[in-house]
Amino acid sequence: MARDTDVRALAFDVFGTTVDWCGGIAREAKAILAPKGHALDWTAFANRWRREYQPAMDAVRSGHRGFVVLDVLHREMLEPVLAEYGVTGLSEDEKAHLALGWRRLDPWPDVIEGMERLKRKFILAAVSNANIALAVEMAKRGGLPWDVILGAELVRMYKPRPEVYDSVASFLGLEPVNVMMVACHDWDLAGAAARGLRTAYVRRPDEWGPGAAPRAAAPGTHDVQVASFIALADRLGA
Amino acid sequence: MARDTDVRALAFDVFGTTVDWCGGIAREAKAILAPKGHALDWTAFANRWRREYQPAMDAVRSGHRGFVVLDVLHREMLEPVLAEYGVTGLSEDEKAHLALGWRRLDPWPDVIEGMERLKRKFILAAVSNANIALAVEMAKRGGLPWDVILGAELVRMYKPRPEVYDSVASFLGLEPVNVMMVACHDWDLAGAAARGLRTAYVRRPDEWGPGAAPRAAAPGTHDVQVASFIALADRLGA
Repeated sequence: MARDTDVRALAFDVFGTTVDWCGGIAREAKAILAPKGHALDWTAFANRWRREYQPAMDAVRSGHRGFVVLDVLHREMLEPVLAEYGVTGLSEDEKAHLALGWRRLDPWPDVIEGMERLKRKFILAAVSNANIALAVEMAKRGGLPWDVILGAELVRMYKPRPEVYDSVASFLGLEPVNVMMVACHDWDLAGAAARGLRTAYVRRPDEWGPGAAPRAAAPGTHDVQVASFIALADRLGA
Repeated sequence: MARDTDVRALAFDVFGTTVDWCGGIAREAKAILAPKGHALDWTAFANRWRREYQPAMDAVRSGHRGFVVLDVLHREMLEPVLAEYGVTGLSEDEKAHLALGWRRLDPWPDVIEGMERLKRKFILAAVSNANIALAVEMAKRGGLPWDVILGAELVRMYKPRPEVYDSVASFLGLEPVNVMMVACHDWDLAGAAARGLRTAYVRRPDEWGPGAAPRAAAPGTHDVQVASFIALADRLGA
């Protein structure tokens, strides 16, 4: 079996793993909608929006729709959520600004310290379903020290389709076993493992909001299981 | 005419503009060949190797050859140079290591300070003919603080073909006028300007070795002309 010492690059999932989408979207929605008199459960609103995520990408993954970037999907996904919550009368600019709220998400508290340590030993690659513009704005706003931004847009296909994982080693000139996927979602890590990448599961118990109890990955499912990016740095000797 | 205040992203050429390829390749060649008894003019050797660069890319740009990454072209370009200098008996590993010397080039002395200042105000994108793996290794080794690495490999075509410049604004979700190409080569800046990007010419008088006098761009040819990345930061108010 490959050893930790073979790992040269870490491929990070972003939404949930690196940044707190639920807290960020709850904040962004409240900032736009509360002044208009809406008093919603903002965490529930964020979760409802996020539940459109996999179905929206399925249309692309199945081949029923050509590739469109995630910024566009986020905008489309917003419509049924607004309708369901009875939010009407937003201007197109307001909707566009709210949809780009997915670019304005904060890293979890452990992320920057962990990444700064890991960056000294490994190539840090964003390997997300986010498009490049989204990932760049998020990184500059939040201070995420990526070495390189890869992911869905470069292969015009969404995780967990194999071409996304295959492209990471290819772009970096490495073998798949030299790359470790870091994520808080089993489906993402399973996709990576199926293409020969190593896997690190990071527990993010607050991904869907404080107290939203997640399933933990079964012990032994992944090469590494940790509770934070700092613990990942400890585990990988960075 | 567009104003400086419209610029949101800087697209940097790498070889010559950001890093000193001539000095670096002279050093790398000497490190490998001098212990084997070769006493060459190392600067001339580096220049000779670099002169294979445009013809090698022409085969791809003209459509006579499918896209191959620059690491591979550098390795191929080395053969006629070794033959011309009468260097024989290198192992394949030694040749491969020497060809990857193009990943181990140092930034010019003004580059890191200038980029750190510019990064606070602009998106800093590497837009080079280098492949991703080359650019990542160079950046980590030299401390280049890119926000994002774009360029030839992502569109599988080499500058100055238009698709490379077009891809920069597209990936960043900007208009071409919001992007300024930064380079020490007129041909690169002309290619960028033809696609609507703004242009900054950086004088690099030592690109082909100390005292190798370059042509300076004609005054007024480009939006900005500067002598260093620090002067660029001054000029752009960063």
